[in-house]
Amino acid sequence: MVNDPLDMPASGRFVGKEHRFPLRIYFEDTDLAGIVYYANYLRYMERARSDMMGLVGVDQRAEIERGGGAYVVADIRVKYRKPARLDDALLIVTRVARVRPASSFIHHQVMRGDELLVEAEVTAAFIAADGRATRQPREWVALFEGYAGE
Amino acid sequence: MVNDPLDMPASGRFVGKEHRFPLRIYFEDTDLAGIVYYANYLRYMERARSDMMGLVGVDQRAEIERGGGAYVVADIRVKYRKPARLDDALLIVTRVARVRPASSFIHHQVMRGDELLVEAEVTAAFIAADGRATRQPREWVALFEGYAGE
Amino acid sequence: MVNDPLDMPASGRFVGKEHRFPLRIYFEDTDLAGIVYYANYLRYMERARSDMMGLVGVDQRAEIERGGGAYVVADIRVKYRKPARLDDALLIVTRVARVRPASSFIHHQVMRGDELLVEAEVTAAFIAADGRATRQPREWVALFEGYAGE
Amino acid sequence: MVNDPLDMPASGRFVGKEHRFPLRIYFEDTDLAGIVYYANYLRYMERARSDMMGLVGVDQRAEIERGGGAYVVADIRVKYRKPARLDDALLIVTRVARVRPASSFIHHQVMRGDELLVEAEVTAAFIAADGRATRQPREWVALFEGYAGE
Repeated sequence: MVNDPLDMPASGRFVGKEHRFPLRIYFEDTDLAGIVYYANYLRYMERARSDMMGLVGVDQRAEIERGGGAYVVADIRVKYRKPARLDDALLIVTRVARVRPASSFIHHQVMRGDELLVEAEVTAAFIAADGRATRQPREWVALFEGYAGE
Repeated sequence: MVNDPLDMPASGRFVGKEHRFPLRIYFEDTDLAGIVYYANYLRYMERARSDMMGLVGVDQRAEIERGGGAYVVADIRVKYRKPARLDDALLIVTRVARVRPASSFIHHQVMRGDELLVEAEVTAAFIAADGRATRQPREWVALFEGYAGE
Repeated sequence: MVNDPLDMPASGRFVGKEHRFPLRIYFEDTDLAGIVYYANYLRYMERARSDMMGLVGVDQRAEIERGGGAYVVADIRVKYRKPARLDDALLIVTRVARVRPASSFIHHQVMRGDELLVEAEVTAAFIAADGRATRQPREWVALFEGYAGE
Repeated sequence: MVNDPLDMPASGRFVGKEHRFPLRIYFEDTDLAGIVYYANYLRYMERARSDMMGLVGVDQRAEIERGGGAYVVADIRVKYRKPARLDDALLIVTRVARVRPASSFIHHQVMRGDELLVEAEVTAAFIAADGRATRQPREWVALFEGYAGE
């Protein structure tokens, strides 16, 4: 099989300081009530954050594999305004509000076209391999700072 | 196969107005970082709320099957203090803080023995089958009120 | 927000009778052992099948919403050859092997570049809204037949 | 909080060589079609296998944490006969069919009372921390052998 660029997963992109990550809703995302199960939006936000980090130049997998630390969510506030449904095309819009030595503040909006479905404020902390809170790698902070600010 | 009570899933229980729901952490719950993936705690809280509703006398499945409404989470605030790990025995402690005609305010604590791992405040709203916010069934409000209050 | 085509989720595509669906592995997909949790490949295959159906012209959501039937997997055989890891770019390659009135036989390969990671044979049956096995909508069979065959 | 035995998660049990593991179906398990999403039965089977290993005396977490190997599913065949629904009480019945140096053959039945819903045959292989297939720890084989056989 030739490695055709069309066979690569699409990633998100930055428009200014705003990161945009599209995704579609599948059966696995819905529940009996016919709408997306509430915990799943946190999965989409994490996909968007991981995609954003990759674009910024942060390699989380290499860091974990070399025994380094990882980001964990310390605090999240989510407002669910309207439900998403099977087959919806959503856009996760992410902004890095502030970067501190040991944590970053991130804002997500889950959009369906012009409708705001879900909104979240996330505090992501960095933990060492032993689970203790620690400072983010200095180079990563530098990378994020170029994208931070409302 | 005889229907032995030992073959029935354990449920949670009320201790006064506090609902206690135990669960164990499996591979599916963890991620590469060796800890429980952050969205999964919302699954555990929902299991606890569903178990609590069953104990109180609310039959969500019958309501949905007859074309009635369902609870949805309108707002959640989660504080992640310490991570859970594979094989941990957790206890989800739930309290109904307040019951209003169209929504209920619920507090969850995820405990591992005496350690508080995760804490959440949830606003659950009731929606009709067409997705619009509506009042909770009056009998359900009456059922919850017996368990509400700090 | 303008509805930019870049903000739409990428879909898969047909190359001849072969459907190709790319996706990336995120934290949610992995477990403590550092690899993708085995049940998750079934989620990716279902995403690929749903994407394929949409391309072929089958609208599963409209069918369910009008009280019609749905596909269910009746039988699946999965061989796991090599594990996928965080951040891997995978390609789900799907072929419709045979279409019968009440079921379809589908073959999936999960590729990472030229490596075959996972392979599956799926029998998908059609069930009416009451849960009984029934014939697939005749127009759907006609749509699939154009893509069937090794 | 006193550590009351009622606050511990229930585990499965052996009845002869048959392992029985009860569980209940929650919203997270269902999809839009009103039934349990097909990949989720693999999660239940893995919970049952992990519970069984704990009862037999195998500590998977300790093995992974000390840099040892882990079980992976190499092959699974699943027959879905009837769907499970929200709030169903299921019983996962597991038997170790054969134990070989590098792999074990396991049979699962997902029961709802006397109804067989789903059936699966699993080949579990043991892999070293570097991902290569290797022999199961000898003491583990000895532990399983006491429970093996139809």
